[in-house]
Amino acid sequence: VKVTVVGLGLIGASVAKALQGHAEITGIDRDTGTIEKALREGVISRGGSDLSLAQGSDAVVIALPVGNIVDAARGLLPHLSPDALVTDTGSTKAHIVRDIETFWPCFVGSHPIAGKENPGYSASQAILFAGRMCIITPGAHARGDCIRRAEQLWEACGSKVTVMDPVKHDELMAVISHMPHLLSFASMGLAGDLHVHRSLLGAGFRDFTRIAASDPVMWRDIFLDNKKPILELLDGYVRELGALRKIIDSGDAAGLEEKLRTYSTIRRDLYEDNR
Amino acid sequence: VKVTVVGLGLIGASVAKALQGHAEITGIDRDTGTIEKALREGVISRGGSDLSLAQGSDAVVIALPVGNIVDAARGLLPHLSPDALVTDTGSTKAHIVRDIETFWPCFVGSHPIAGKENPGYSASQAILFAGRMCIITPGAHARGDCIRRAEQLWEACGSKVTVMDPVKHDELMAVISHMPHLLSFASMGLAGDLHVHRSLLGAGFRDFTRIAASDPVMWRDIFLDNKKPILELLDGYVRELGALRKIIDSGDAAGLEEKLRTYSTIRRDLYEDNR
Repeated sequence: VKVTVVGLGLIGASVAKALQGHAEITGIDRDTGTIEKALREGVISRGGSDLSLAQGSDAVVIALPVGNIVDAARGLLPHLSPDALVTDTGSTKAHIVRDIETFWPCFVGSHPIAGKENPGYSASQAILFAGRMCIITPGAHARGDCIRRAEQLWEACGSKVTVMDPVKHDELMAVISHMPHLLSFASMGLAGDLHVHRSLLGAGFRDFTRIAASDPVMWRDIFLDNKKPILELLDGYVRELGALRKIIDSGDAAGLEEKLRTYSTIRRDLYEDNR
Repeated sequence: VKVTVVGLGLIGASVAKALQGHAEITGIDRDTGTIEKALREGVISRGGSDLSLAQGSDAVVIALPVGNIVDAARGLLPHLSPDALVTDTGSTKAHIVRDIETFWPCFVGSHPIAGKENPGYSASQAILFAGRMCIITPGAHARGDCIRRAEQLWEACGSKVTVMDPVKHDELMAVISHMPHLLSFASMGLAGDLHVHRSLLGAGFRDFTRIAASDPVMWRDIFLDNKKPILELLDGYVRELGALRKIIDSGDAAGLEEKLRTYSTIRRDLYEDNR
């Protein structure tokens, strides 16, 4: 099987590493240094910056920031045989699936739930997807055989695959990923002077703000692409903060305890007390 | 040296365990079962629910929720010799120090920066404070010898001690601890239906929401006690979210990237890229 990976960052290079032994990998990246490194380390067997290198591939994985995925798919079009599976790894799916399925019948969107704050080739690892979920989001017109091949590709990477409607995927991700990132990012707006007190930062601060170190370009694209659900949730969150503000300001101890107990119970139930 | 610990929860019982071999420990707790367990395990050598048990102590550590500390100190008063050091472990300090120093000349507030979400005696451990910071907050009239004894007590627990003005302490803690807890708690207001998607929750969600499982009573007291700095920061945070909302809604990619880059840089600088 010949697989082309477009974008050898954390996710793309991890796909290439995970598929070692399962497929012959071509890597496409605009950064020559990364291509050379990946060739030297045997992560890819062919590579370069030109999309025409994808010619002859059975499957193409586009592992680029959300804002560049549709353009890359369009650029690959002339080089692919009609049966080539195209998939991507973007964290949003509705727009991407809607756009690409208009011009590529064998496209199936994917979202591997894996990642780290450290981006880039050097952070990639073969086991990044092992035992982790990958959400496959076929469009309304996706071919059944292409869906099955996308599932097999992610299973070969070690993922557990689940299928979801692209719009439903984006609404869910707004809650479980996009909002936490937005809120953690924004908390840094209060933290400008903290470096002098670095030694006093506890585990709570460290974990709450960990995702505020995430990649600005990747998250710019996600927030803009999934604007509607995110802004609705943001408004709901600000309302929640407003209610809390009122309770704290009025000194309503019983009301505050009840609120906090509800929050704490929801969190504990989600992880069944296993944090 | 005789030390009495009032409240054998996570922090109090960890103090008792950390001082093994350095002091003879009396434990006071309203829960008879906890006292019996602590006696059986040799964590305390004497114990019960009555504050009069503190009689003859060289030092008393009040490890109760913030809202109960001043009352406990008042209740201990008749049983202590005038030279007995009294300290506490509350996460807020301004009100507590101001109140207790009016009636106890040898009081020095303390705040060990250590903790876990799992509360209670069973989560306590001798090494909880090892290598962690403890902030000592003497009031304006604190006796120098009492400050030194408070430092020695925490050093005996393994802490690194730093001294800070109580009001300054509360303002700093509002930023690095109270706000992250409030914001993480409130995010559970959006998470009520997530249990069906439990398998899709990633590391970002897990870490961002970890502190939302914290103890409701402890945090009720902290939020109410440190109301002023917290509400000011809350207002600032809501303004920050409002600015972000506007940028996302208008589709201003350059403006959004700049914001996110600033946040990400602040976070990376705080931990010098070591997350």
